[in-house]
Amino acid sequence: MDPKRHDWGDSNSTQEPPLHKAPRPHVGDSIQESFPHRITSIASSNTLVQIPTEQSDSAENASQSISIKETPQMRHHRASLGLHPLAPLHDDHAQHGRQDLFWSRVRVTFREPFAEFWGVVIMILFGNGSVAQVLLSTGQTEGAPGGNGFGNYQNVNWGWALGVMLGIYVAGDSGAYLNPAITFSNCLYRQLPWRRFPTYFIAQLLGGMVGSCIVYANYISAIDHYEGGHGIRTVPPVQTATAGVFATYPQPFVNKASQFFSEFIASAILMFVIFALKDEANMGMTKSAHFFPLMLFFLIYGIGACFGWETGYAINLVRDFSPRLMSYGLGYGKEVWSAGGYYFWIPMVAPWLGCMFGGFLYDVFIYTGQSPVNAPYLGLSHFFHPRQEVRRKIEAEKDLQMV
Amino acid sequence: MDPKRHDWGDSNSTQEPPLHKAPRPHVGDSIQESFPHRITSIASSNTLVQIPTEQSDSAENASQSISIKETPQMRHHRASLGLHPLAPLHDDHAQHGRQDLFWSRVRVTFREPFAEFWGVVIMILFGNGSVAQVLLSTGQTEGAPGGNGFGNYQNVNWGWALGVMLGIYVAGDSGAYLNPAITFSNCLYRQLPWRRFPTYFIAQLLGGMVGSCIVYANYISAIDHYEGGHGIRTVPPVQTATAGVFATYPQPFVNKASQFFSEFIASAILMFVIFALKDEANMGMTKSAHFFPLMLFFLIYGIGACFGWETGYAINLVRDFSPRLMSYGLGYGKEVWSAGGYYFWIPMVAPWLGCMFGGFLYDVFIYTGQSPVNAPYLGLSHFFHPRQEVRRKIEAEKDLQMV
Amino acid sequence: MDPKRHDWGDSNSTQEPPLHKAPRPHVGDSIQESFPHRITSIASSNTLVQIPTEQSDSAENASQSISIKETPQMRHHRASLGLHPLAPLHDDHAQHGRQDLFWSRVRVTFREPFAEFWGVVIMILFGNGSVAQVLLSTGQTEGAPGGNGFGNYQNVNWGWALGVMLGIYVAGDSGAYLNPAITFSNCLYRQLPWRRFPTYFIAQLLGGMVGSCIVYANYISAIDHYEGGHGIRTVPPVQTATAGVFATYPQPFVNKASQFFSEFIASAILMFVIFALKDEANMGMTKSAHFFPLMLFFLIYGIGACFGWETGYAINLVRDFSPRLMSYGLGYGKEVWSAGGYYFWIPMVAPWLGCMFGGFLYDVFIYTGQSPVNAPYLGLSHFFHPRQEVRRKIEAEKDLQMV
Amino acid sequence: MDPKRHDWGDSNSTQEPPLHKAPRPHVGDSIQESFPHRITSIASSNTLVQIPTEQSDSAENASQSISIKETPQMRHHRASLGLHPLAPLHDDHAQHGRQDLFWSRVRVTFREPFAEFWGVVIMILFGNGSVAQVLLSTGQTEGAPGGNGFGNYQNVNWGWALGVMLGIYVAGDSGAYLNPAITFSNCLYRQLPWRRFPTYFIAQLLGGMVGSCIVYANYISAIDHYEGGHGIRTVPPVQTATAGVFATYPQPFVNKASQFFSEFIASAILMFVIFALKDEANMGMTKSAHFFPLMLFFLIYGIGACFGWETGYAINLVRDFSPRLMSYGLGYGKEVWSAGGYYFWIPMVAPWLGCMFGGFLYDVFIYTGQSPVNAPYLGLSHFFHPRQEVRRKIEAEKDLQMV
Repeated sequence: MDPKRHDWGDSNSTQEPPLHKAPRPHVGDSIQESFPHRITSIASSNTLVQIPTEQSDSAENASQSISIKETPQMRHHRASLGLHPLAPLHDDHAQHGRQDLFWSRVRVTFREPFAEFWGVVIMILFGNGSVAQVLLSTGQTEGAPGGNGFGNYQNVNWGWALGVMLGIYVAGDSGAYLNPAITFSNCLYRQLPWRRFPTYFIAQLLGGMVGSCIVYANYISAIDHYEGGHGIRTVPPVQTATAGVFATYPQPFVNKASQFFSEFIASAILMFVIFALKDEANMGMTKSAHFFPLMLFFLIYGIGACFGWETGYAINLVRDFSPRLMSYGLGYGKEVWSAGGYYFWIPMVAPWLGCMFGGFLYDVFIYTGQSPVNAPYLGLSHFFHPRQEVRRKIEAEKDLQMV
Repeated sequence: MDPKRHDWGDSNSTQEPPLHKAPRPHVGDSIQESFPHRITSIASSNTLVQIPTEQSDSAENASQSISIKETPQMRHHRASLGLHPLAPLHDDHAQHGRQDLFWSRVRVTFREPFAEFWGVVIMILFGNGSVAQVLLSTGQTEGAPGGNGFGNYQNVNWGWALGVMLGIYVAGDSGAYLNPAITFSNCLYRQLPWRRFPTYFIAQLLGGMVGSCIVYANYISAIDHYEGGHGIRTVPPVQTATAGVFATYPQPFVNKASQFFSEFIASAILMFVIFALKDEANMGMTKSAHFFPLMLFFLIYGIGACFGWETGYAINLVRDFSPRLMSYGLGYGKEVWSAGGYYFWIPMVAPWLGCMFGGFLYDVFIYTGQSPVNAPYLGLSHFFHPRQEVRRKIEAEKDLQMV
Repeated sequence: MDPKRHDWGDSNSTQEPPLHKAPRPHVGDSIQESFPHRITSIASSNTLVQIPTEQSDSAENASQSISIKETPQMRHHRASLGLHPLAPLHDDHAQHGRQDLFWSRVRVTFREPFAEFWGVVIMILFGNGSVAQVLLSTGQTEGAPGGNGFGNYQNVNWGWALGVMLGIYVAGDSGAYLNPAITFSNCLYRQLPWRRFPTYFIAQLLGGMVGSCIVYANYISAIDHYEGGHGIRTVPPVQTATAGVFATYPQPFVNKASQFFSEFIASAILMFVIFALKDEANMGMTKSAHFFPLMLFFLIYGIGACFGWETGYAINLVRDFSPRLMSYGLGYGKEVWSAGGYYFWIPMVAPWLGCMFGGFLYDVFIYTGQSPVNAPYLGLSHFFHPRQEVRRKIEAEKDLQMV
Repeated sequence: MDPKRHDWGDSNSTQEPPLHKAPRPHVGDSIQESFPHRITSIASSNTLVQIPTEQSDSAENASQSISIKETPQMRHHRASLGLHPLAPLHDDHAQHGRQDLFWSRVRVTFREPFAEFWGVVIMILFGNGSVAQVLLSTGQTEGAPGGNGFGNYQNVNWGWALGVMLGIYVAGDSGAYLNPAITFSNCLYRQLPWRRFPTYFIAQLLGGMVGSCIVYANYISAIDHYEGGHGIRTVPPVQTATAGVFATYPQPFVNKASQFFSEFIASAILMFVIFALKDEANMGMTKSAHFFPLMLFFLIYGIGACFGWETGYAINLVRDFSPRLMSYGLGYGKEVWSAGGYYFWIPMVAPWLGCMFGGFLYDVFIYTGQSPVNAPYLGLSHFFHPRQEVRRKIEAEKDLQMV
């Protein structure tokens, strides 16, 4: 084995000194450093730092005796997960007296993956939950106020849209991507370090599985009732199929090319608009970071209302593959993979390409900041000299003390 | 009898001196002190304090002659209700000339319970009102624009969601919990003093009863019309039952375990997301306290749209038990208790456990501030030494001059 | 004739000197002074005043030579309308070079009535328009996306709710009451001078008539089509009646007492929640004046979704009486008055009492600022000594230089 | 040929010196200068300028060696497009190291047209997409959660409303008009230079065509399915027509005058409310530029919900003509022009007149700033001396260094 891997205390020593010298960055700053495509508003960072609360006062007094609790081990662990050695912590909280407990250190070490995980769980809970409620109550007249089930298709739009919005609030400190294709595009176009990608991806995948499991557990007796018997589980196009609660299945008349195009274009719109919403240089006047989650509500609602019919707008691997895998494990049979002409691979592939393309379009036509597209031949030159490109990227990340 | 209990002026003398010495806290501060889990934004507190309005100017001049109107008696009364001796008052208003009238003193003494009471009234008015309108107009074609009743199930989501949001605006100064299980979790995890709990609980309970009475009074002729005769009152699963307007009744195919799980998981999501929205250390960047009520709209809408079918998403004792008791008193019969296999106890129990669990999850995985979970063995150690724990808690509250 | 009435320049001389001495108030201030129940946020008023725009720069230079354009005549005219002698103008705009044209002076003189008028027009356009679209397209399948008309009852909620919200934005400078009962309550509880009431009332009445006329003009061929022939106009309960587009008609099974109670309680909720939203002393933390119009959207939506069925939630004289009068004039016949057992007087009376009651409740239980309720015997003492009360009020307004 | 036209470096020399002397304007300022009807909030402009991000720090250091990248050629190109010689760039981005690449210069030169183009594309994608989804899935019961298609008419309102809102966020730096009639009114009433109009118009036209092409490509197999065969394309009033996905077609019972009036009044409302929302002098208190896009959501939703039935609320040439032309080109036949009695010209003409009228009303009754209506005879005098007027306008623009 590599001895350094277990020698947590020393292996990172070369990167750490600058951290000790500089004063601990504020929350805003450390996020800034990790996600350079974001701009922290002065107002909000001040709010966090200067408020004279009782809590913070006592914490500040305490801070003179208690040192910052990110031990070298934690930094090493975080670095080996691809994260910035310093977690994005509130100053006061970072100096909290009980941060040296085992679990407190775990919580800080895995801060971003935990955040992504729970953000995806919340997103899936509301998303899959809304489909479950609407689908399983279809046509119910008795005991339904209004006499026609518990929600219609619009309800599904609401569910996914507000699931994403609340998921962003929950996952705040991680960057709140909730979608590996969006993480990927941020690595590609916005200098998010590539080494964070695997950690985020795994957290998102697990979140999708846990979320859909909870929805299944919650609706298990309703599913039995709808399928017509205990333990019966079917997949579309069976009339009483309930697999559509978890993963997406395309409309029967849509051919493969249209399926792919639909997912591709929806993902491209998603990425294009997110980059526009995050681009403070584009109409700073009417933009406010506070509105970002609300706008994501409208964006997801819109994609569901305008491009959600043909293929169910997966636009996210973890929203489709994780619940599909879960439903396979829970007894829906091999049809979860074979349905729709082995449709399952399309929402695994199209979102990446769509997000790449949407981000590319935004950077080509509008974005004026630092981007690989701002390079000779629109950045496509990177493809010609890949080795040189990788080397440069690694060096750049080293300069940011992130390796 | 304990003579001190009626000697309002003296019994609290030991706690009061520090209050006289220090300048009167601003609104923001006193809230801060009462609810240490909240962080006041500088901007908003300044807004309240420095605005040179005519009103405030005259009040300020007055303040040199008229002293602050919270008499020792009021402080004692408030303390005996479990409230902070100083009410969360606007500075200018606190020095208003007529604050020494009897009712003005009552208003200040009961400030938080009044706020909770009216917040719950508003919530129940809109919530129960929306169910009433949708249920009682089901299938009406004549005189209905659109030809199909006055709203569908989505309307119910709107009603409860905006009822909670507007209730929060109304109940602002109390903390605006509107749900005893949420008050409970704030006591448990966020240092809200336990002694406030009973006062809040009673105010919330009464609010639920008054709110549902008003809805009943408003819809009494429509209920007669729907039930098919004057004074007929029935409970589901009777076809024309109207008891569902007030309390929740589960779907017939859902078994007890699923009923409990549904309420439990919905309450856990509620608490988890509220803690995320209130946690300023989690993505302070895109958070703003101004958005909190709006986000509660989406949260309640989402729970109704995604987990509202099986059991009617009570997730709140006072939303279910208070109207149920009221409907029992108004002649719906013993079936309000026995319906659904004596379902009534589930929304009385599950929300507490759900909120506890949701808050526990948030504090275990994300929250980095002061919390009993930030203790050895995830705070479960508190269970091992309960006496010691209680003593410590009482001392801590004494230090905050709250006993 | 009273010579002073036409001697605009001199009649007000006693009130004017202080205006000349003091520097011209900023927009925020003058609103403040006119509507003492509002608190201007510092941030927003600064924004308006200090921004170094090209426009304002040139205007400021100009201001040294061009004096403020509110001539004594205009002040007198405004005072005789019950308005503050100085219009709530943006500083830069007040000094605009062409403010001495005839119409510019008219525009400034009638600033608040114009604002109320257009605010009500916008409200009625969207409100009546939404009912028209939903009602007249009921059951249309051909040419309707979705195959079931152009909107359902929820659409009506949207229409009224966003009509009120956008009307508030349009009517900003007048206070944006859009409802004489709310103006009335503000006079009663929030020191809005009573002498403004008639001017506002007339502007609101006219706005309601003009707005409903435009809706009628827009939908005239659709009304002909729905009624089944050119020029046929009927009133509910006729099957194909279209009078419900303009005024409200109650459900047939609702008795008079329930009709009155429904309008009363809806108006009380309206006023109670508006006072809560405007009460900066109640949870200043999560309140922001910027959210006020959006919250009114939710409030109106909620009243429509929860208390809108039985009587159509008029809750506003100008929303019901003005269009009703207009529809009478346009040929709907005497039935517009006699329908529903001469229902028409209820929305003319109930909103005033409801708003009075809702405001009373808020001031009794929550409001801590200056209010007639903050008086011996909850302000009901005012009823015992009315003459004395009126004299005191007039003196108080004189002190504010408003008579 | 005109030699100056190709001598980019020199032809503009007379206008440029002042630009070199003055420090480069901030983003906010340059927008201010271009669109004098807007007022930048201090807070937001500061946010953009002062944030000490890593990016900006390095950029600032760089800026000492690298000069601003808007070469004289680019300025000349921009001026000949009618744009301000300096693009509305973020300071940091303007000094980015790679701004001298060919495409970077193209991006900066065409900044506003690109922004308008993509804003319109996004608007049309969501708008046409929502109609497509609702129309083509009408009546589908199998595989539809809720059992009744994928959305109803309300979905169409959502689609257009959020399309406009997100389009505004995308098109931020151009002014985000997304509608030539609104650009036109801003030229007429708000000093937007007329010479920008053609460039904006062309960008908007192209955006409408590209957006509707993408929607067509996405739904091509669904259109085949709905029309009943490969390549069949029909226009209303054919039962299974799909041309209504792209352009608007009036209801059959609406006569020409009502068609025109409906589009006219909807456009007038649009312009009137937009001017109210943009008029910071009208209730600056509760206005915030941050809310502008959200309010446009409600405005467009409202127009669709209240005035959208008779003619489909085109209210925008590029929303109707561009997709109509596209659908003609794609094989829908000449009926796209002849349907509804050659209805197509109405949405090409009415929006201009409607927006002019709406803006006129606002300026006559409410607006107090600089406007041609603030002139003798309400600005109608401009019609009497057109030549003199044009000369004065050109001189005024010269003073602003914009010719």
